[in-house]
Amino acid sequence: MKEDGIGSGQIIRRQPDGTLQYHRDDLTLEEPLEIRIGRKSVATTMRTPGHDEELAAGFLVSEGIIQTRDQIADFSRPAGARNRDNIIITTLAEGTKVKFNSAQRFGTISSSCGICGRESIAAIRQNFPVIESAKNIRIDVETLLSLPSLLREEQSDFARTGGIHAAGIFGLDGTSFCVREDIGRHNAVDKVIGRAYLDRALPLTCRIILVSGRASFEIMQKALAAGIPIVASVSAPSTLAMEFARECNQTLIGFLRPPSFNIYSHTERVILG
Amino acid sequence: MKEDGIGSGQIIRRQPDGTLQYHRDDLTLEEPLEIRIGRKSVATTMRTPGHDEELAAGFLVSEGIIQTRDQIADFSRPAGARNRDNIIITTLAEGTKVKFNSAQRFGTISSSCGICGRESIAAIRQNFPVIESAKNIRIDVETLLSLPSLLREEQSDFARTGGIHAAGIFGLDGTSFCVREDIGRHNAVDKVIGRAYLDRALPLTCRIILVSGRASFEIMQKALAAGIPIVASVSAPSTLAMEFARECNQTLIGFLRPPSFNIYSHTERVILG
Repeated sequence: MKEDGIGSGQIIRRQPDGTLQYHRDDLTLEEPLEIRIGRKSVATTMRTPGHDEELAAGFLVSEGIIQTRDQIADFSRPAGARNRDNIIITTLAEGTKVKFNSAQRFGTISSSCGICGRESIAAIRQNFPVIESAKNIRIDVETLLSLPSLLREEQSDFARTGGIHAAGIFGLDGTSFCVREDIGRHNAVDKVIGRAYLDRALPLTCRIILVSGRASFEIMQKALAAGIPIVASVSAPSTLAMEFARECNQTLIGFLRPPSFNIYSHTERVILG
Repeated sequence: MKEDGIGSGQIIRRQPDGTLQYHRDDLTLEEPLEIRIGRKSVATTMRTPGHDEELAAGFLVSEGIIQTRDQIADFSRPAGARNRDNIIITTLAEGTKVKFNSAQRFGTISSSCGICGRESIAAIRQNFPVIESAKNIRIDVETLLSLPSLLREEQSDFARTGGIHAAGIFGLDGTSFCVREDIGRHNAVDKVIGRAYLDRALPLTCRIILVSGRASFEIMQKALAAGIPIVASVSAPSTLAMEFARECNQTLIGFLRPPSFNIYSHTERVILG
C-alpha cells in the first residue's frame, strides 16, 4: 500500500516522564473529495487521499446509485480546477441512467453524522436484496481468528499515525484480497467494495469483510450492497446493526479480539466445533 | 446519567479458552432521530436515544442554523406519529427566521460519512468567528491529565457495552460540567453543546472539551461553534483538524493518555512548566 495518506506537523509531545519533545509528527491526511457524476455533484466526503476511484465507485455502489460494472465508463479529474485532486468525475457509460431520487431516498445514514437527511428508516431496508442462504458459505473459527493480524499487517499508515481506520476483504480460507485505510470507517469500506467493483468481483458472495472499528447499521448496509454474507468488527456493534444483520441474513461478528469474539446473528456460517 | 442507551440481544460468545457461552449481551442502542424545525425536516441522525433535546439544540447550533437561546421556544414530539420517539420538533420563537440555505451551505462534513453534500470547503472556515486570544484562558498540565479518568467515570454505558463514544465539557480547573455518551462521536459533542445552549451557557469561552475518539475537522468546527478554546482528544487528530485549529486559534491536544499527550496548536494555553 502506498503511504500517501500521511501528513505531518510540528508538535509538542509530553513524554511519560514529564519531559517535553518538540518534533514533527505524522498525522493522517484528511481532505475533502467531491464525487461527481458528469457535472452533477453527488456528495463530498472527508477522506484520506489515495484510492479515490475505488472510493467513488464503492460509494456509488453502496448508495445504490450504480448497480453493474458496465455503468461506469471512466473516472477523471476536472481540467484546470484549483482543487482538482479533491474532485473526481464519474463518466457513465453511454445510455446509462442513474436515479438521483433513489440515491437521495436510499442514501446512507451515518451514526457519526448528523446532516444526512432521511425521510424514513423503513425505506433503507428494502434497498438491497438480502443475503441468500447457502450451506457452503462458512468460515472456520481459526481462520476467523487470524483475520485481525492480517488486517493490521497491511495497515501501513496506522503504524505511523495511530489514527486511521481500515477495512479488509478476505476469502473464507483467510486469503487477503484487499485492505484499505481511511480516516473514515465508511470510506475504508467503500474503498474495498469499490476495488471489488472495478475488478468485476461483485457480488462478494464467498467473502468476509473485517472493519477496524465498530459495526454500525451503515457498515452492515454497505456490506449488503456488495453481497457480503459475513461482517466482522474489531469493536462493538449497535442494536440496529444486529437487527439489520438478522433481518438481511448477514452473519455479524463483533469484538473480534483473538482468542475471543461474539456472534450476533446467523451463527450457522461460523464453524465453531 | 440515565442508562437509557442500552439494548440487548442473544449472542454466542467465544471465551478466551475456546468455550462457547450463549447469553444476552448489552449493546449500544442505535436509532434514527429526525430533527425538525416546525414541519420541515432538517436532518436525520443515527443516535443513541436519550437527551434528544440536547442533541437537537446542539446540532442546530453547531450547524450555524441557530445562534441565540431565545430563538428556540420549545421542543415537542409529533402527536400520534408511529415513531414519535424518533422525531423531535423544534418550535422557533415568534419572529425567528432561520436560513436553511445557510444551513445547507454550512452543513457539516463528516469524515465518517460519505453522503454529506458540500459545494466548497473554503466556505466552512468562515462560518464561525475564530477564538479570541485571552491570556487567562489556560489549563494546568495536571488538570489536563486528570480529564480522561473524569470522563470515563461518567461513562456508564461504555462500561456495559464497550461501544459508545463520549464527550465532556470541563472547566479549566477540572470541574466536570456535562458528559454525554452516544454511538456517534459527533452526536456526543452535539449533546454537550446542546446542554450548554439550553442552560444559556454559550459561548464556552473558559471551557475545555474532551472527546473519547479521534479529532477530525468536524469536531473542531463544532467546538468552534460553541466558542470552546481548547479541544482534547483521547486519540489521533487529522491534518485538517490541526490546520483548522491553527487557523481558528484553537488549542488542539491529541493522544491524551496520561501521563502523555501531544499538543498540535496554540500551546500557549497549556501550562507545561
